[in-house]
Amino acid sequence: MRISIIGSGNVATHLGKAFYHSGHEIADICSPSPGHARALASLVNARALTQPSALRKDIDLCLIAVKDDVIEQLASALDFRETVVAHTAGSISMQTLSGSSPYYGVFYPFQTFSAFREPDISRVPFCLEANRQQALERLRELAESIGGKIVEVDSPGRKTLHLAAVFASNFTNHLYALAGELIREKGLPFDIMRSLILETAEKAVNADPFTAQTGPAVRNDQKVIREHLHQLEGQPALKQLYSLLSASILNSHKKPNI
Amino acid sequence: MRISIIGSGNVATHLGKAFYHSGHEIADICSPSPGHARALASLVNARALTQPSALRKDIDLCLIAVKDDVIEQLASALDFRETVVAHTAGSISMQTLSGSSPYYGVFYPFQTFSAFREPDISRVPFCLEANRQQALERLRELAESIGGKIVEVDSPGRKTLHLAAVFASNFTNHLYALAGELIREKGLPFDIMRSLILETAEKAVNADPFTAQTGPAVRNDQKVIREHLHQLEGQPALKQLYSLLSASILNSHKKPNI
Repeated sequence: MRISIIGSGNVATHLGKAFYHSGHEIADICSPSPGHARALASLVNARALTQPSALRKDIDLCLIAVKDDVIEQLASALDFRETVVAHTAGSISMQTLSGSSPYYGVFYPFQTFSAFREPDISRVPFCLEANRQQALERLRELAESIGGKIVEVDSPGRKTLHLAAVFASNFTNHLYALAGELIREKGLPFDIMRSLILETAEKAVNADPFTAQTGPAVRNDQKVIREHLHQLEGQPALKQLYSLLSASILNSHKKPNI
Repeated sequence: MRISIIGSGNVATHLGKAFYHSGHEIADICSPSPGHARALASLVNARALTQPSALRKDIDLCLIAVKDDVIEQLASALDFRETVVAHTAGSISMQTLSGSSPYYGVFYPFQTFSAFREPDISRVPFCLEANRQQALERLRELAESIGGKIVEVDSPGRKTLHLAAVFASNFTNHLYALAGELIREKGLPFDIMRSLILETAEKAVNADPFTAQTGPAVRNDQKVIREHLHQLEGQPALKQLYSLLSASILNSHKKPNI
């Protein structure tokens, strides 16, 4: 497949490399920052550009992998005839691309990407949606070619997935960071959390997180909860978070008729 | 080593089996529930009892692996002379055991244990503390014999670890559960979260969670945040959690002078 990518961030870079290493031809990398465009283009043997109007027209797919809030503006600058145009965003409606091409869709990788870490693409579910069957088939073929899993989801479902990802990934990661701060104040290294964090994640995905819940809140152990809140005196934001999350666990697990 | 265990829950069971399979002799399993005591005793070739007063005296270690709020009462029923008495609790002071034996300490596994899952003991850090060097050496020898990692922590440090574990394990697990509820309402299976949850945990422990933070809050993407809050209309508890966690991420990552 001949593909161009708009964007040069984490998603554009990891996907661009995966496409290239699976034998696809990367035509253009387009980014407003010439240095970033050239850096990614050199990795995937592509041409670097800064203006979407300069994109080659004879491509099979134009993938928009940029921040959510610039997709709409970018889409209005595109005018393809045969090329499938797709974005990679969780929260943006597919219809945003309706003026960019007769064939449009969404290619949303349900994963967190960072510059410092190579993702295992074969574990990534790709959430696909398209306005026409031919466009969906092209996106499906692309996801399969890089070893990804395929999930067909409409725009409302994808928005819910995006919101759920914030809870399951962004917020959990922040809780790891808060836990790390707490123990570093006592001179203990973050590394001590390693096995607890991995085991919690593995338990949740190998059973289900409701069944896997442990800790004082699910036991309604008010003595420990009071002691923890006492330890958090002087850190009102953490204390409020502790109270709210404990109440939420209690509420989820409350027994009927109690 | 000849060991008796008070308790028959997840911690008692997983540790008891690990001791037994590493060649230690398990003398007694003591639990107020005779059925539970017998079930664990049969797994580790021990005698089952319900009264602490009936525990054999000629043992090297008596391990109290029960709920935090009954340790104090149990400790007052023990009267050993040579035996090291230790509990496995994160939040209970070592001094609680000072009347149980001249040799006492803490053997706190920094891990979450569930009945349905065999833990990998070689990944578990054991937080050790004791009132005398000989007692500490015995606890250290025991942890090493089952392949655990050793961390020496005093009672205040251990209480902070316990609090941090609630954030990094109990609360993150609850966020997985909340995310699962959100997507199940759209007919999507929890399994779709699998790779995201594992990758987030692996990123955090292989880099550090502050650097690994992604999502709308760290980018201060107010448009997506507003959209998510709008999606949570009608679920006030979730909406409040979303706001508080997003504010906490923003606050942690705010740039100086902005």
